[in-house]
Amino acid sequence: MCQLLGMNCNTPTDIVFSFEGFHRRGGLTDHHADGWGIAFFEDRGCRLFIDDRPSVDSPLAKLVRDYPLKSMNVIAHIRKATQGEVRLANAHPFMRELWGRYWIFAHNGDLKDYRPATGQYYRPVGDTDSERAFCAILEALRQRWDEMPDEDALFETLARLTAEIASHGVFNFMLSNGAFLAAHCSTNLYYILRQSPFNKAHLVDDDLTVDFAQITTPHDRVAVIATLPLTDNEIWTQLSPGQLILFKDGIPVR
Amino acid sequence: MCQLLGMNCNTPTDIVFSFEGFHRRGGLTDHHADGWGIAFFEDRGCRLFIDDRPSVDSPLAKLVRDYPLKSMNVIAHIRKATQGEVRLANAHPFMRELWGRYWIFAHNGDLKDYRPATGQYYRPVGDTDSERAFCAILEALRQRWDEMPDEDALFETLARLTAEIASHGVFNFMLSNGAFLAAHCSTNLYYILRQSPFNKAHLVDDDLTVDFAQITTPHDRVAVIATLPLTDNEIWTQLSPGQLILFKDGIPVR
Repeated sequence: MCQLLGMNCNTPTDIVFSFEGFHRRGGLTDHHADGWGIAFFEDRGCRLFIDDRPSVDSPLAKLVRDYPLKSMNVIAHIRKATQGEVRLANAHPFMRELWGRYWIFAHNGDLKDYRPATGQYYRPVGDTDSERAFCAILEALRQRWDEMPDEDALFETLARLTAEIASHGVFNFMLSNGAFLAAHCSTNLYYILRQSPFNKAHLVDDDLTVDFAQITTPHDRVAVIATLPLTDNEIWTQLSPGQLILFKDGIPVR
Repeated sequence: MCQLLGMNCNTPTDIVFSFEGFHRRGGLTDHHADGWGIAFFEDRGCRLFIDDRPSVDSPLAKLVRDYPLKSMNVIAHIRKATQGEVRLANAHPFMRELWGRYWIFAHNGDLKDYRPATGQYYRPVGDTDSERAFCAILEALRQRWDEMPDEDALFETLARLTAEIASHGVFNFMLSNGAFLAAHCSTNLYYILRQSPFNKAHLVDDDLTVDFAQITTPHDRVAVIATLPLTDNEIWTQLSPGQLILFKDGIPVR
């Protein structure tokens, strides 16, 4: 299956350290070599990098490692194809616009016999179960509201839609509109909250340590969410199956 | 004003040579230093690179120069901000999905008092006249057709929409859905068709020559469209004000 990585912060932060370990899972330390992608929000704008090559030898991944883009919401994905062939249109994350904002989605799992009706507002371009699920979520939200509703109502509806789709199979996903990041666990998803006092962290996938105390301010808060823990000297919290968490400003708010 | 570059081919082709000269206009040989972007279709998939920094010293532009992505439809843009501040959400090209395909749009010009009604299907994320025009075009197409119509009907409607919007000001643009590339001229737009027998070409913006005969096959056809000619030893055709051309497989078909 695929691997997911997300970051949600209260101040623009680069993801270079986490990505350093994560991208190695795309063909080097693990078998997820069917493409990859990463999306960075900058306010309402969004940079989306996708590639149908393994992340470990992708020139795009080299750029992401060398160019420390700062963002408050990041979603990355390394693909092991289950449905849909290996081509660019099937690379996660996927992007659409809803209510005048970009929305980004990436999925790890496999939805069986999942064929939602053709949407009025959103239609898949590729042929993955993942993009079908993303379009179905946005379609249902857009059908229900002409404008962005309040966060309570949105979260409640998102939880209901998620439960419906998750009945088709494994549905670990991350979804962000640049203001928050929602993460849902079917099988594997962990998160860690980093805030003052910051400590050193050491990567699982590479012999690399960073001392966050050196590169942060006391006000910073960063939540990192991943399929499997990225560091081996910190305590990661595992999400329960069926759990949907909304991260905002670097903390879980729902 | 901004600068546009487009390429439409009958076989996947890299744009490295044209981009080499073009990207220098973003802060080096010309004054268009308010961001830039480029979109490459690969079949139905699309890579979109945008940056709010000048193209001439952008790490993303270095990647595009060093990583010869092959595509049959490319649209690039260097921005000189007229409306909307310099930020990522205002960087061209813009991307949306319509009828299960991605559509890419970039604009050079300035539309005065152009405030189309809020769309049902498409809404701008940033605050440029350009993204408003793109959303208005897609909105009108989507309102009229539930599925992709035939090309005659589409082109006719696009021409009508273009004329309406162009009444607000300067509206040079390029639009592609990965199957064709439409280019509209208000003031400045030139194209060149390269096909067998291929010749050498020399850049205006840099002392660089390429011999296309060495890197092409006799079957290849490539149309390059740009705000101003990129080479100084080839004959570029200038579009007339108000002219809309549809390029497909490397030739103008309408």
